[in-house]
Amino acid sequence: MYSELKQRVFAANLKLPQYGLVTFTWGNVSEIDREKGVIAIKPSGVEYDVMKVDDMVIVDLNGAIVEGTLNPSSDTATHLELYKAYPEIGGVVHTHSRSATIWAQAGIDIPALGTTHADYFYGDIPCTRKLSCDEIAGQYEKNTGLVIIEEFKHRRVDPMAVPSVIVAGHAPFSWGKDANDAVHNAVVLEEISAMALATRSLNSGIKIQPELSDKHYQRKHGDNAYYGQR
Amino acid sequence: MYSELKQRVFAANLKLPQYGLVTFTWGNVSEIDREKGVIAIKPSGVEYDVMKVDDMVIVDLNGAIVEGTLNPSSDTATHLELYKAYPEIGGVVHTHSRSATIWAQAGIDIPALGTTHADYFYGDIPCTRKLSCDEIAGQYEKNTGLVIIEEFKHRRVDPMAVPSVIVAGHAPFSWGKDANDAVHNAVVLEEISAMALATRSLNSGIKIQPELSDKHYQRKHGDNAYYGQR
Amino acid sequence: MYSELKQRVFAANLKLPQYGLVTFTWGNVSEIDREKGVIAIKPSGVEYDVMKVDDMVIVDLNGAIVEGTLNPSSDTATHLELYKAYPEIGGVVHTHSRSATIWAQAGIDIPALGTTHADYFYGDIPCTRKLSCDEIAGQYEKNTGLVIIEEFKHRRVDPMAVPSVIVAGHAPFSWGKDANDAVHNAVVLEEISAMALATRSLNSGIKIQPELSDKHYQRKHGDNAYYGQR
Amino acid sequence: MYSELKQRVFAANLKLPQYGLVTFTWGNVSEIDREKGVIAIKPSGVEYDVMKVDDMVIVDLNGAIVEGTLNPSSDTATHLELYKAYPEIGGVVHTHSRSATIWAQAGIDIPALGTTHADYFYGDIPCTRKLSCDEIAGQYEKNTGLVIIEEFKHRRVDPMAVPSVIVAGHAPFSWGKDANDAVHNAVVLEEISAMALATRSLNSGIKIQPELSDKHYQRKHGDNAYYGQR
Repeated sequence: MYSELKQRVFAANLKLPQYGLVTFTWGNVSEIDREKGVIAIKPSGVEYDVMKVDDMVIVDLNGAIVEGTLNPSSDTATHLELYKAYPEIGGVVHTHSRSATIWAQAGIDIPALGTTHADYFYGDIPCTRKLSCDEIAGQYEKNTGLVIIEEFKHRRVDPMAVPSVIVAGHAPFSWGKDANDAVHNAVVLEEISAMALATRSLNSGIKIQPELSDKHYQRKHGDNAYYGQR
Repeated sequence: MYSELKQRVFAANLKLPQYGLVTFTWGNVSEIDREKGVIAIKPSGVEYDVMKVDDMVIVDLNGAIVEGTLNPSSDTATHLELYKAYPEIGGVVHTHSRSATIWAQAGIDIPALGTTHADYFYGDIPCTRKLSCDEIAGQYEKNTGLVIIEEFKHRRVDPMAVPSVIVAGHAPFSWGKDANDAVHNAVVLEEISAMALATRSLNSGIKIQPELSDKHYQRKHGDNAYYGQR
Repeated sequence: MYSELKQRVFAANLKLPQYGLVTFTWGNVSEIDREKGVIAIKPSGVEYDVMKVDDMVIVDLNGAIVEGTLNPSSDTATHLELYKAYPEIGGVVHTHSRSATIWAQAGIDIPALGTTHADYFYGDIPCTRKLSCDEIAGQYEKNTGLVIIEEFKHRRVDPMAVPSVIVAGHAPFSWGKDANDAVHNAVVLEEISAMALATRSLNSGIKIQPELSDKHYQRKHGDNAYYGQR
Repeated sequence: MYSELKQRVFAANLKLPQYGLVTFTWGNVSEIDREKGVIAIKPSGVEYDVMKVDDMVIVDLNGAIVEGTLNPSSDTATHLELYKAYPEIGGVVHTHSRSATIWAQAGIDIPALGTTHADYFYGDIPCTRKLSCDEIAGQYEKNTGLVIIEEFKHRRVDPMAVPSVIVAGHAPFSWGKDANDAVHNAVVLEEISAMALATRSLNSGIKIQPELSDKHYQRKHGDNAYYGQR
């Protein structure tokens, strides 16, 4: 019944090691079927090289397992909050990819410094506030999602224009129109994170020109976009 | 009619992922046939692993498509300005290769710090000025080319002796006698960019001796060059 | 008689080059059979690509060769001290993996800066004191083990909660419940060492929240752990 | 007549791209046959992936071609000076490997910071003085060799105990008992160069304990060495 959804989520998960975004099992991808009210997500702690398509777990929006014999990713509750808050998104990915995680550990927004960033992200990539002790002690993974959503709301950032976040002291989450698109954004996030690290070390005060950022974002994503084949 | 040109441009484009210069579709190579007044260039937004030789687009020097069913690279207008201004060049390449892009984002010339640089580039590699708001809002890609040409003219730098540039806030362009040579220079640019980052971090004031720079450039490119097989 | 032990140790040693933790022969893995009172360990100075399972050396807890025609790793005495002091551990690994060795050379503890660290290590990873001249001139490899043990005891750090150490001026050792688990921890150590280098360069005073460290360690290793499949 | 020598030099040259020490043709390895008074060396500017064993060039100690149809490496004169000055060495290698070249460009000795360094190099790796304008304008490659030799003599460094050098503004040379051993040392040089870069960035004043340096060098290379199989 969920075989196509599982297949897409399985394939998207396998892209994480292919793009060098994960060590061991440190990442997970999900995709939602909004009509059926379920997501498919990677099982928790299963190695990518032995994982099979039928290991994908189908979970409803309350986190209850609908189909599957394994436990879903321990980060499932974070994915679910994002799907519930952002109706436009279809896929979510979490990794500990090196450079993005470095910015998350440093607790600093990933600054927009060039057109590589602007081609995908409209402005800085927010780093969330720290979770409170109560938020950590309580429903930690759900609260991680809520803190992400709070950050975007508080800053008035459109999650579709900035499809990634870094969680302070933790690591990045990315999203997109489906699982594959979310992984695509996670790859971009890692590359621009690495570039930003060295750029700031060369020139600590530099920022992208706002007009250049607008131009590159709009030529790919605006109403009159002319990048690619349409 | 343009099958050999397309084949060369196709092969040169495939070298970009081979040498690790591109993520996804972030790069494009072209070559000019000056007799026929056309260039062949990568189509916009097509992934390297599915791209076929017949996807290459033939464009005239006004940017009109002469042959091909796909849109040419969105950076085509930049390539065309370079070909029109520099009659000696036969190939152009644009990438967002990591280390060169870092210097572009920092807005700092890539300094000549050693013989690796001097073997290919006669002096620092210029970073252009920022484009004005009007230049961005107008014919952005064409203006990018014009700003590159302005920078070389203003500094009295010979584009054949320094076959690369970094565009402020954006990324590098390289060129050469044909598409393959342009890609070769793009690979060198990335390597010397990475070396320069760490060299300056170890010794912030260092520069290459001008005599050593001359010697290495001339032993490869001068009238009495003796590097390689001749 | 020791064929299964040898096979496991052989396989664990081969993971070192697979994970990029060693150059040439710069690493060794051992595993203990506590019932038989022996360890199997890599032979000294043998290249990984020609090493055979029967090259593994069986050594008793005094360092005497029980089975095998080659010399055991020159670091055998360090492994033996760790096995004798820590009855819970079953495997030990030593490498000169780049980022962990950098921290060892700098003589600085690897700070806990994020959840990637906290998922495996409960707090900072100690850097030992320097060995004294007498300790170096005497039974150097045995004394290396004793200095590690002294450091953990002095700091009241549980070696099972922090299954790695860096030896000042030298390189890391990791351990685990068996050889494979020790290598797993060595891979994690290298990744978090690399992340910590850049994190501290971005934000020199940053530390992980203690509550976040607790949470991540406990959700994987605590009594109510819920990460993975159980 | 020189087929075995050529074969060894060919194989040693191919290790340069295998170990990631070269981009394009930026490296060359030679080995000497002291009885016959010749060296075999890589031809100049020939790509590694098309190079054949018979492309190796046999040159006498005056630099005259004895056998071979191609030009020898443009760095041949540097190799020859090293062979003439150091009768114990049998192989020489030159690369522009990234991290060692960074130290050369910065004009700073590669400091001994840990046992990885001490296992192969007894003390800091010298950076030569800059060549004078006359030395550059004259027999540049020969003078490069002479400046290396001057540096070791002036500092009273034994070239067999420190089998590498970095030439200011240029790049490293390594040597060893034969071509293969020289390449081995070049690989080590690159790794310790990378480690030293980040170590100094973490702790700018750190040095290895002299006693630890002695111990590690002697346990591999001293009269009572006990590393490896003997």
